[in-house]
Amino acid sequence: MAIYNAPLADMHFILNDVFKADQFWQNNEKLNHIDIATADAILEEMSKFAKNVILDLNRNADEEGAHFNQGTVTTPKGFKEAFAQYAEGGWIGLGADEEWGGQNMPKMLTVLADEMIFATNPAFMLYPLLTVGAGMALNNCASQQQKETYLPKMYTGEWSGTMCLTEPHSGTDLGIIKTKAEPNADGSYHITGTKIFITSGEHDLSQNIIHLVLAKTPNAPAGSRGISLFIVPKFLVNEDGSLGERNPVSAGSIEHKMGIKGSATCVMNFDAAKGFLVGKENEGLAAMFVMMNYERLSMGIQGIGASEFAYQNAAQYATDRLQGRSVTGAQSPEKPADSILVHADVRRMLLNVRANNEASRAFAVYVGQQLDITKFSTDAEAVKKANDHVALLTPIAKAFLTDMAFQSILDAQMCFGGHGYIREWGIEQCIRDLRISQIYEGTNGVQAQDLIGRKTIKNNGQFIAEYIAEIRDFSHTLDADLNLLKDKTLAACNEVEAVTQYIIEQAKVEANFSNAVAVDYLHAVGLLSFSYMFAKIANAAKDQHGEFYQNKLVLAEYFATKFLPNITARIVNIQAGSNLIMKFSQDYFTAQS
Amino acid sequence: MAIYNAPLADMHFILNDVFKADQFWQNNEKLNHIDIATADAILEEMSKFAKNVILDLNRNADEEGAHFNQGTVTTPKGFKEAFAQYAEGGWIGLGADEEWGGQNMPKMLTVLADEMIFATNPAFMLYPLLTVGAGMALNNCASQQQKETYLPKMYTGEWSGTMCLTEPHSGTDLGIIKTKAEPNADGSYHITGTKIFITSGEHDLSQNIIHLVLAKTPNAPAGSRGISLFIVPKFLVNEDGSLGERNPVSAGSIEHKMGIKGSATCVMNFDAAKGFLVGKENEGLAAMFVMMNYERLSMGIQGIGASEFAYQNAAQYATDRLQGRSVTGAQSPEKPADSILVHADVRRMLLNVRANNEASRAFAVYVGQQLDITKFSTDAEAVKKANDHVALLTPIAKAFLTDMAFQSILDAQMCFGGHGYIREWGIEQCIRDLRISQIYEGTNGVQAQDLIGRKTIKNNGQFIAEYIAEIRDFSHTLDADLNLLKDKTLAACNEVEAVTQYIIEQAKVEANFSNAVAVDYLHAVGLLSFSYMFAKIANAAKDQHGEFYQNKLVLAEYFATKFLPNITARIVNIQAGSNLIMKFSQDYFTAQS
Repeated sequence: MAIYNAPLADMHFILNDVFKADQFWQNNEKLNHIDIATADAILEEMSKFAKNVILDLNRNADEEGAHFNQGTVTTPKGFKEAFAQYAEGGWIGLGADEEWGGQNMPKMLTVLADEMIFATNPAFMLYPLLTVGAGMALNNCASQQQKETYLPKMYTGEWSGTMCLTEPHSGTDLGIIKTKAEPNADGSYHITGTKIFITSGEHDLSQNIIHLVLAKTPNAPAGSRGISLFIVPKFLVNEDGSLGERNPVSAGSIEHKMGIKGSATCVMNFDAAKGFLVGKENEGLAAMFVMMNYERLSMGIQGIGASEFAYQNAAQYATDRLQGRSVTGAQSPEKPADSILVHADVRRMLLNVRANNEASRAFAVYVGQQLDITKFSTDAEAVKKANDHVALLTPIAKAFLTDMAFQSILDAQMCFGGHGYIREWGIEQCIRDLRISQIYEGTNGVQAQDLIGRKTIKNNGQFIAEYIAEIRDFSHTLDADLNLLKDKTLAACNEVEAVTQYIIEQAKVEANFSNAVAVDYLHAVGLLSFSYMFAKIANAAKDQHGEFYQNKLVLAEYFATKFLPNITARIVNIQAGSNLIMKFSQDYFTAQS
Repeated sequence: MAIYNAPLADMHFILNDVFKADQFWQNNEKLNHIDIATADAILEEMSKFAKNVILDLNRNADEEGAHFNQGTVTTPKGFKEAFAQYAEGGWIGLGADEEWGGQNMPKMLTVLADEMIFATNPAFMLYPLLTVGAGMALNNCASQQQKETYLPKMYTGEWSGTMCLTEPHSGTDLGIIKTKAEPNADGSYHITGTKIFITSGEHDLSQNIIHLVLAKTPNAPAGSRGISLFIVPKFLVNEDGSLGERNPVSAGSIEHKMGIKGSATCVMNFDAAKGFLVGKENEGLAAMFVMMNYERLSMGIQGIGASEFAYQNAAQYATDRLQGRSVTGAQSPEKPADSILVHADVRRMLLNVRANNEASRAFAVYVGQQLDITKFSTDAEAVKKANDHVALLTPIAKAFLTDMAFQSILDAQMCFGGHGYIREWGIEQCIRDLRISQIYEGTNGVQAQDLIGRKTIKNNGQFIAEYIAEIRDFSHTLDADLNLLKDKTLAACNEVEAVTQYIIEQAKVEANFSNAVAVDYLHAVGLLSFSYMFAKIANAAKDQHGEFYQNKLVLAEYFATKFLPNITARIVNIQAGSNLIMKFSQDYFTAQS
């Protein structure tokens, strides 16, 4: 019953008009194999696959779930065929290097392709997603031989990948992991320990599963500086690349979750499983962060996909649902009632969702472009600036985009009234599926700590200053007919700049300050980012003719008027600081009242 | 695994210290059968039942759900015994008139008892809840004979009740219902039609089910002025009160929902079922509103219960979960990590939940007291003022309390990290169960329309003016040591007063204005109400000794500093009005992008 049509026109607009992708690609010799027509064709192809294959499997995947039986995990009906088709289409390696069988497509394109699968079946998407992330980590840190052994088969989908970090007692705080890596005489290690919440830890979609595992070698330093990264394949790989003996790594159970039920979330037991060190000992966390940063941007895209799905279904429902009359008189007097789209409150909810979707999508492409610059540009200064941007904006992409998306799909659900609470319409599943995006890959609270601490206070605000300078420069180029957006964006720049300075100073004298205000700061920077995106969107639309472009201008104005002022509330919250929060004794929280 | 201890100390404090319940009860001859000691004893009894009986059934009820088989509905394991015990304890009639077998307890007490069952098993609570609501509607509008026939057996739990309003094409807009009532020669009617989303429409907990059904008689006026209310019993009742023949009313199916799965939500088919008119023809909607208003306050209490449950479990988890170190140095150096309660961001989330719970609970008791005044007071002026208050505050109690509670349990879930997403801890069920409270009994958007339209603009702001005057009067009595709370509450009074005036004026010239800004207005009035409650709480705590009372003062300050300023953001949103929202064509919303 659920519908989905990929927003191809908006995607084209963002790539072509907002970010001038063609020019960017054609001027870069590593990217000039792609032009906008090719990008459009790729996205159209993906949209068909999402709509015709993946969407149909979504509701059943939720109801059937993944199955666990004595260490074996079976994915829901249809996943195996769909995964084969996805792999066959070359989608796993869409953004991977040609050297390893990838298609070398820019990130600003792949984020849009990923959005479609996240929109139509997020549980399915997690299987290839973890493979791609593991591939990136290996590509960055593994030896040439390791790359040759693993990467090509991962990008064909013959093998898949995982990320094994969390343990029962150790989640955010990876410094206290207990999994051990004992060196063997042949240079390999024996890995022993239990990992939990391992997405795609075991399943029936690929012939082999390549686990990337964090573990501690004997005598490793305590804490996060003593963590190493290992490849632990489910089946050991013979020298000729064929599968050898089964490694003693197995799934002990799968979790029963609120959503993404088609995705197998496994407890993985490593019983002296053979592992191979990636990079140097004790440098595993940094290596893993390559993968984590990729996944974090992906979670933001999960948010966009879900919110787009929610929007389309809610807008269709609202159009069809007849209830009440317009306050200005019946709009459809021949019918028993008007469409609920006549009610301003219903429109308000839908516009909130839509404004979020368009700004989020533009932001994901923007961050994708920054990643492309870091990877493909030869201009050292541009690369440095892009690296700073990526560092600053990754927690925003992960946390702000998923927070906004979750709020959006709640609004979308409300458009359905009671019908939104029953399974039939797919919107309640969408909520259950999306909620995890705010939690996994580092909770959104942890993202906010990363933003305010490592990415802002630690460099004395340099990254955010560079970002604000760019936004200001751009805003100053806006024409007079975009004055509202220009003024509000510049005002937001000033507010965020001032509060950043305040945070840097206050953190010096109030120990718990940055921790207490981090989430508010993340949302303030997120709102500024959306304002920047709408300024870019409006600038790209303003001289073009037709309703499509005119509506973008009105939506940008809607955002600036109704959303953006929330920055002020965030700043007031920041000013309240940490003192009241820390005033309560620890016992207060659980003392019976 | 989930825990629950009813917050008896807080409940006692609110009744005894904040609202001086003893004095209120003892000074009223219809209520002087109750004193604070009796109230405490009743609440303690209910807390044991909630903790020892009802809580245990909660998770299974979610996993098992209600069963449907050829028109028969079976409730989850244990519900039947628990319902019998609940009925045996006299809980169904706790607030009902003694004349019909009730215990005549004041609403300000019953809201607290209800909270405990909503906290521990909301799906279970809906079975007695609908019975109580149906009883209230009958008590207000039915004939003496009808009351005698139905009410006593409903309060013993032998029979139960429902509310049959919604039809497939007709939810918020009841004016377009199609269910027909054809008069019979004997004065009864034949009711024919289909009702959906009927909570407890069919089940195995009682011997008979008394449906209250809205239907249209032949030649009834169009729209909501042509709706009549009927009693349609599942089994017709013989003159001696025994059960007669089965009426042709039956469940066609039950819904598969996001949550409250143990509650049977039925499609009810009426096939010329025998019905008995309640009150006068065409006055059914007003009669039903007695029940709806009761249910609406109850939904707010559902929110408090869920949020209290979520708080207790999250606080316990946060205490036990060791992860990371305090920024001021290890607090538990002997352990591998500190409790996550050392992190300000975790405390922030828990304090948000707690502040919401304490203000919400006080507000529910406050509204309960207003209802008690309308029912028990002999002072005509007091009754009139209380009636105005109830009219104004019912949509706040329903929508603001459930919005705040939902936000709270999301915060609580986040405290669990990944563990909050798996079933084991009960928090994800809590979210799924609570979400309906924002949707049913009139969506929160519809509540906001009621507040801004019928309750505010229509009377030219009289109700809100009376309410603000009361808050101001109270605030002026506050001592100097509560100056922060006093100043902020008075400032909030001024803000809400001014924006109300603005709304009344603007609504005259901007047709869609009130519809567009209603939700923001509801939240502004809600925040003012919470500020009023915290002013009352602080005033009751300030001269008392001990940590319990001191913590109330700090929490009140936390609210005033971190929550209350959101009023300003709401007002900015109100000022943005409806023009941009209405600027989009209807096609815009579904046009493919």
